[in-house]
Amino acid sequence: MKPSLITASLLALTLASPAAAQETEPPTPASVVAAAPASDWKRIDPADLLVMDLAPDAAGKPRRVVIQLVPAPFSQGWVGNIRKLAQAQWWDGTSVYRVVDNWVAQWGDVDESKALPEGVSEQPDDQYTALWSDVPALYRQAGDIMVNEAERLERVASGAEPNRGDSYAGFTTHSNSWPVAVEAGDVWPTHCYGSVGVARSVGSGGTGSELYAVIGHAPRQLDRNIAVVGRVIEGIEYLSTLPRGPTGTNGVYEDASQRVPILSVRLGSELQEIPQPQFEYLDSDSQSFADYVHVRANRQDPFYLHPAGGIDICNVQPPIRRIPSE
Amino acid sequence: MKPSLITASLLALTLASPAAAQETEPPTPASVVAAAPASDWKRIDPADLLVMDLAPDAAGKPRRVVIQLVPAPFSQGWVGNIRKLAQAQWWDGTSVYRVVDNWVAQWGDVDESKALPEGVSEQPDDQYTALWSDVPALYRQAGDIMVNEAERLERVASGAEPNRGDSYAGFTTHSNSWPVAVEAGDVWPTHCYGSVGVARSVGSGGTGSELYAVIGHAPRQLDRNIAVVGRVIEGIEYLSTLPRGPTGTNGVYEDASQRVPILSVRLGSELQEIPQPQFEYLDSDSQSFADYVHVRANRQDPFYLHPAGGIDICNVQPPIRRIPSE
Repeated sequence: MKPSLITASLLALTLASPAAAQETEPPTPASVVAAAPASDWKRIDPADLLVMDLAPDAAGKPRRVVIQLVPAPFSQGWVGNIRKLAQAQWWDGTSVYRVVDNWVAQWGDVDESKALPEGVSEQPDDQYTALWSDVPALYRQAGDIMVNEAERLERVASGAEPNRGDSYAGFTTHSNSWPVAVEAGDVWPTHCYGSVGVARSVGSGGTGSELYAVIGHAPRQLDRNIAVVGRVIEGIEYLSTLPRGPTGTNGVYEDASQRVPILSVRLGSELQEIPQPQFEYLDSDSQSFADYVHVRANRQDPFYLHPAGGIDICNVQPPIRRIPSE
Repeated sequence: MKPSLITASLLALTLASPAAAQETEPPTPASVVAAAPASDWKRIDPADLLVMDLAPDAAGKPRRVVIQLVPAPFSQGWVGNIRKLAQAQWWDGTSVYRVVDNWVAQWGDVDESKALPEGVSEQPDDQYTALWSDVPALYRQAGDIMVNEAERLERVASGAEPNRGDSYAGFTTHSNSWPVAVEAGDVWPTHCYGSVGVARSVGSGGTGSELYAVIGHAPRQLDRNIAVVGRVIEGIEYLSTLPRGPTGTNGVYEDASQRVPILSVRLGSELQEIPQPQFEYLDSDSQSFADYVHVRANRQDPFYLHPAGGIDICNVQPPIRRIPSE
C-alpha cells in the first residue's frame, strides 16, 4: 500500500479529499484491504512474535522492532532456538553491529563469545526447504495450482500471452500469508524486504543467535541457502535507517560506540506490559487476498497507464496491521 | 558484490586472508569484476553525471549523491529538462522533502512554486518505452536473444527445465549496461534499487524537476508508468538512511526543519573542482559482463548450497566504479 509517485501538489489534493473520489474510482490495493471483512483477517498468536527493543535514538525516541516468526513446516529448528534465546533473555545487552546498504542489518553477539542457553545448538544446513505435501493449505490447492501453471506455460509457449515468471523458482505463491517459492516438489519461504534470516558459517546452518533483516531489494539468491525465520511487521525503519558500516569490514561497525544496543528481545506472549501488542494478517486463503494480489498486479487507478499484468512475490507483501486495543 | 551473510567470526577470517583463498576458490561476482581487463570498462562522460550535494549531516560530514543519466533512446525529454535545470542551478536551495520506507526518497521544490527555467516543460505521459529497433546494441543481438528465449520457453513448457522468468515483462536484459525489459517490440529501463525517476501528476509525464530515488525493493509496477531518468551510482546511503516521513502525509516531512537542504546540483562536466569525479562501468557487451551475470545467477562459492539458476534483473546491477585520479 505504497502511495504513488505523485508530485507534492497532488499529494496535498489526495490528502484533502480522500473520501470524495472513492465511489467512482476503480479498486486499489488499499481499498481492497479496507473493504476486507473481519472474517478474512487472522490474529497472530503473540507467542509467535519476537519484540526487539533497541536503545532509544539520539532524540530519546523508543525504537521497537516487531518480528513475526515463520510457522511450521519452515525453519522450525532455528525458530525453536530463537524462542529459547528470547526466553533466556540472551539478546539483552547485545547489539545491531552490521548494516550494509541494499542488503541487511545484522544483530546478535558481535564477538560470538557469549555462551548460548541450554538446548540451543547449531542446526544442519540442509533444512531450508519443506515438501509441498507438508504444507497443508498449498497441498489442498496443489491440483489447481499445477493445472493453472501448466495452462499458463502453454499459453506463453504458444505466444498467446507474455511470460510472467519468477527468476528464482518454478513459481511462487502464498502459504498462511507467507510468500513461498515452489519447485520440483520443494517449497521454501522467500527472502523479501523485511525478511529475517539466520547468519551462519560455511558448513553450518547457524543457531539463530545471529540474525539479520533484509533492508533492500529481495536477495532471493539466499533462498534455500539460509534459514528464513521471520519477517519484520513493525519498526523496520529503525533498522533500515541505521548508518551503513564501512565496505572494508563488510558493513560491521568498526567502533563499538557505533553499535546499536539491544535493550531486550522478548516473545510477544512474555512481554511485561498491558495491553500486549496484537496484530492480524489478511488470510491468503480469502477472496480479499486474491483480490488484493490481482489489483496489485493489475493497477487500474488513473495513475497507471500500463498495468504490469504480473507481480513478483516480494512486491505483494501480505497486509498486516495492529488490532486496536479495547 | 554484497558480502555473504556470514557470522562475525568468519567475517574476520575472510578479512584476514582475502588473497590466500583466491586461487583455489571458484569465481565469485567480485573475482570476475576484479579480473575484467581494462578494455571491458567504459568511462562515463561527466556530462552524463548529475552531482547533488546535500547539506552536511549532523556531524558535519558532506553528503554527495552522484547520479548517472540514462542514455538515449530512453526518457530523453526529461533528461533534456534535467540538464537545463542543473545548468540553471534550479535545485540549489530546494530539498529532499519526502522519504517512504521500502519505497523512495523524493526531492525538488516541495511547494512547486518555483518558476522553471526557460525551455523546461511538462513531458507527455506516453514516452516511457522505446522500440526494440531503436536500441542498437540490443537490435544487433535481437536474433540471438529471441532464439535463445524461444528455445528456453520450449524447454520450460516440456518440463526439461524449471521456469526462470521475469514477473513484469517478456524478458529482461542489459543495454549499454542499463537494465531493460522487453515485450512485444517495446523496450524500457527498469525500476531497480537506486533508480531515479520523475514524480508526476495524473495526466502528465512531469518535467523532471521533482525526482525520486528508489530505496527499497524494485517497484517494477512503475515501469512504463513513470520516466526512469537515471541511477544513483554513489551516495545512495545519504538518501536511504534518511528518517522516514509520516504515513499520514505519504512520507512528506510535516515540519520544514526535517527537510534535507540541497546545496547544489550540477552536471559532472560543470563541477568547479579538480579533479572532477570520474566513473567507469563494466560494458554489458563484454565477456566479463556475461561471466558476471552467470556467476551471480549460479553461485559456486562454498557458502551457496543451492545456486539459484536464475537472477532477477534488479539483483544484477552492472558494476560501476570510480576511476582513480592520476
